[in-house]
Amino acid sequence: MPHRVGSYTIFFDSRPVILSSAAVVGPKEGRGPLGNSFDLVLSDPLFGQDSYEQGERKMFHEACVRCLDKAGVSADQVQALLGGDLENQIMAASLAARELGIPFIGLYGACSTMAESLLLGSLLSEGGCFDPVLCAAGSHYATAERQYRFPLEYGNQRTPAAQWTVTGAGACLISSRGGGLARVHSGTAGRVVDLGVSDANNMGAAMAPAAADTLLRYFYDTGTSPKEYDRIITGDLGQVGANLLHELMEKEGMPIPEGRYMDCGLSVFDPQDDIHAGASGCGCSASVLSALILPKLRAGEWKRVLFMATGALLSPTTNQQGETIPGVAHLLCLEGA
Amino acid sequence: MPHRVGSYTIFFDSRPVILSSAAVVGPKEGRGPLGNSFDLVLSDPLFGQDSYEQGERKMFHEACVRCLDKAGVSADQVQALLGGDLENQIMAASLAARELGIPFIGLYGACSTMAESLLLGSLLSEGGCFDPVLCAAGSHYATAERQYRFPLEYGNQRTPAAQWTVTGAGACLISSRGGGLARVHSGTAGRVVDLGVSDANNMGAAMAPAAADTLLRYFYDTGTSPKEYDRIITGDLGQVGANLLHELMEKEGMPIPEGRYMDCGLSVFDPQDDIHAGASGCGCSASVLSALILPKLRAGEWKRVLFMATGALLSPTTNQQGETIPGVAHLLCLEGA
Repeated sequence: MPHRVGSYTIFFDSRPVILSSAAVVGPKEGRGPLGNSFDLVLSDPLFGQDSYEQGERKMFHEACVRCLDKAGVSADQVQALLGGDLENQIMAASLAARELGIPFIGLYGACSTMAESLLLGSLLSEGGCFDPVLCAAGSHYATAERQYRFPLEYGNQRTPAAQWTVTGAGACLISSRGGGLARVHSGTAGRVVDLGVSDANNMGAAMAPAAADTLLRYFYDTGTSPKEYDRIITGDLGQVGANLLHELMEKEGMPIPEGRYMDCGLSVFDPQDDIHAGASGCGCSASVLSALILPKLRAGEWKRVLFMATGALLSPTTNQQGETIPGVAHLLCLEGA
Repeated sequence: MPHRVGSYTIFFDSRPVILSSAAVVGPKEGRGPLGNSFDLVLSDPLFGQDSYEQGERKMFHEACVRCLDKAGVSADQVQALLGGDLENQIMAASLAARELGIPFIGLYGACSTMAESLLLGSLLSEGGCFDPVLCAAGSHYATAERQYRFPLEYGNQRTPAAQWTVTGAGACLISSRGGGLARVHSGTAGRVVDLGVSDANNMGAAMAPAAADTLLRYFYDTGTSPKEYDRIITGDLGQVGANLLHELMEKEGMPIPEGRYMDCGLSVFDPQDDIHAGASGCGCSASVLSALILPKLRAGEWKRVLFMATGALLSPTTNQQGETIPGVAHLLCLEGA
């Protein structure tokens, strides 16, 4: 049974296991430093489909199927799929769930969705009656640009603080039993935090306060400090947001030590590839988790890390109506299995 | 601890309690047969705000606050808010969560969101470390029309099978302890089911197969039949979807007995009020749950009911791209406290 420590943090007594994971990404992601570590790199961001949305859905489905294959588990053995994406009405996840036939719990946490699904998946799995549970998240550069900003065909100029949505999907299979890649030690659900950022092209700044809020609550609840973790990993703060997070943590007397910080948003693309402030999207932390973080935990290179995916909660409508952009960040402490 | 019965159904051994509930609705809903049973009927669908989206957010927040007030619980005692709405990126729920400051798990299940949140809330509450948990869902006619179909200002003609999105929000507070309005006996998570309906103005037909799928799996898992429940309640199938559900259940040898069926979508509006096939929207089942179903359970008029909210999984994009419309339905068995 999970139990609560402090006001916000859940400890998983039986340490749910991440049995397997998979990541499918687009061509640009494949050219980045993690290119060889993904399960599939698409040669075509349409994935052979007629629209980017259909390509995104197929990619989400493919990540789920590969994750199940790696664990030797069939879809009808999985007791729930928890997942979401950035498309309006999370249609990529919903239509992938239709193909899979697994009971579907649709989530929306913007770019925090992978951590949201892992947190819920761990809770349901440890409860004993959803086991195994498939957790997944994905995003697509072309569908996100069209929906949140401008269709790619417009050739719109991007601002310096803009981030590049990852074309990618990642999935993890969680169980209360067995060996695997890593175990879920504890987790903290995020509050919606808003310090008044209103620039939809600077989502790192919008998300950093939420990241600091969740991180501080986790350290406070557990009585631990940043130096006790091999890595403190954020989802997609990018360069602007990462700098802000460091500032905020220093102000609170909890500086993140040199060399212990990592942002998935700064790990995906080749820095020469004109991506401005970094990568973003649900698929960013989801694919880096599978391609880099879980393998390092499995290999024993890292013993314990904090994985915190961050989301900027905005829509074109709220932005046009002058609303500021709150952020949310869900955190998991992962350790070697 | 919850345990699994059959392949899909969860039994809640300690029967999580719905401590309190609240519903806030718009003027048209206030003129309907349940008008006197809502906690607040707005005289203005803008709720004093500058846009319908802002009004929707304020309504969502108000339902949450009233629900907490009725239980005598403050927001900082609540360990998670599970909720969503129909706005792109569930912005009504997200921005209400910002005001409340409660850790936020964002959900998207289209019009099934209230049942999705109750199912997850019951699981988390029975797990012992999210207690109490606030579950909420809302929708708004004007924001939904603008987003899914046409802005109201266009004066567009509606088709006979069209449903009218409820302007309303409902919230329930769930705990593992104490007396309350009702208890959660068991539940079944929905699969995404698609029989090929592609008319975005006939969502009842799109959702009926998912409703039948979940209902049949529940009966099969529990070895019960429709006549053992005082009411079998669907979220918002409307007249077209309700007729189809009856047909599908009859075909499967599990007819729903005369007088035992209720659809929230056929309970909200005055039939003279030109609403075509019925009401819909996350706020439909959420507000009827609070205004009608929970009071009847509390009064002992009904002993045990099945509450199954249904969602049509579509976006304007998928619809324009020729995609068919799958449905999903999450079910809870509720009994008097």
